[in-house]
Amino acid sequence: MIQTIPPRSGVAFELRKGESLRVIDPQGEQVADLVAFNRHDTGEAISSGRSIDYASRIYLSTGDPIYSNRSSVMLRIGEDTVGRHDFLLSPCSAEMFRILYGDDKPHRGCFGNLAAALAPYGVQPDAIPTAFNVFMNVPVDPATGAITVEPPLSRAGDYTVFEAQMDLLIGLTACSAGQSNNFAFKPIQYEVISHG
Amino acid sequence: MIQTIPPRSGVAFELRKGESLRVIDPQGEQVADLVAFNRHDTGEAISSGRSIDYASRIYLSTGDPIYSNRSSVMLRIGEDTVGRHDFLLSPCSAEMFRILYGDDKPHRGCFGNLAAALAPYGVQPDAIPTAFNVFMNVPVDPATGAITVEPPLSRAGDYTVFEAQMDLLIGLTACSAGQSNNFAFKPIQYEVISHG
Repeated sequence: MIQTIPPRSGVAFELRKGESLRVIDPQGEQVADLVAFNRHDTGEAISSGRSIDYASRIYLSTGDPIYSNRSSVMLRIGEDTVGRHDFLLSPCSAEMFRILYGDDKPHRGCFGNLAAALAPYGVQPDAIPTAFNVFMNVPVDPATGAITVEPPLSRAGDYTVFEAQMDLLIGLTACSAGQSNNFAFKPIQYEVISHG
Repeated sequence: MIQTIPPRSGVAFELRKGESLRVIDPQGEQVADLVAFNRHDTGEAISSGRSIDYASRIYLSTGDPIYSNRSSVMLRIGEDTVGRHDFLLSPCSAEMFRILYGDDKPHRGCFGNLAAALAPYGVQPDAIPTAFNVFMNVPVDPATGAITVEPPLSRAGDYTVFEAQMDLLIGLTACSAGQSNNFAFKPIQYEVISHG
């Protein structure tokens, strides 16, 4: 059953080993911040630093593992109709909207949405890692290292599948940052697929 | 007073607000993994995701702040005679040496050295963030996102200064990974400079 995450909000749910999570961009050019924790020990979480190191690549897609801070494979990327995601940037947050956008009364952002959704599971805000930013399009200038946040390459109906390699707690958002989604706040959809 | 960190080892120490830390490469082409925590609340630590986001750049140098997971400025980079560092990759670890180097009996790496040095301060291994990898030279291919670990640009005596913006607990290593340092394990030196 396909679930909808309304614009600028987030959810948390369990994903069991062997299940797959399909993250869908229903309208195109939207981003979903994805974090994952070991369901049985939330001190273990996805690690951009380890995943990028072991892949020797900052852009991950089909076949690539997403490792934890203990170097276990938490998720493996399955079918991916987009092929460009970001794993460098923190979830957008009230502080980010103040610093980069100059907002006086900032939205709590994906960070605040993840913190609220994960709180019932005992995950503290400090423990929220750099997210795997599904569909986020962040080119890097190789000479200066400058990054830009460009409109996602996803079109309506595009999706990426993540296969759970252990029992997980997932946090997932419809991104709250204008720049990430070409300045139109849109929903995200997802589906948990049980095999067998 | 200049301190020496022997090859493939690490230290932890306090750095007070207003003090500066000068990290020196005494022989050239060596890397030092740097992590920092709020001295009074070690749940706050440096964040590559927030620092890269707010700088809009993956390569940080003189004048750039290093932010925490709470978006506070923890360190500011001062004089920097090298200008190329990495903030993408996790500290090398036993798991990394197994996965990337195929080592059967791997060294505990910078991660193990940081964990041991930080344990007396109550910092758990799970809480060690992606390090600011001083002098580490990691070019990115903009089309594929492929990264390579190249010899550092540092020559003997080069250094980078970090100015503490709050009371900090610092973890610092002489890197244990061959590829980071052009395959010669070397020491790192550092100096704490008190102003006034």
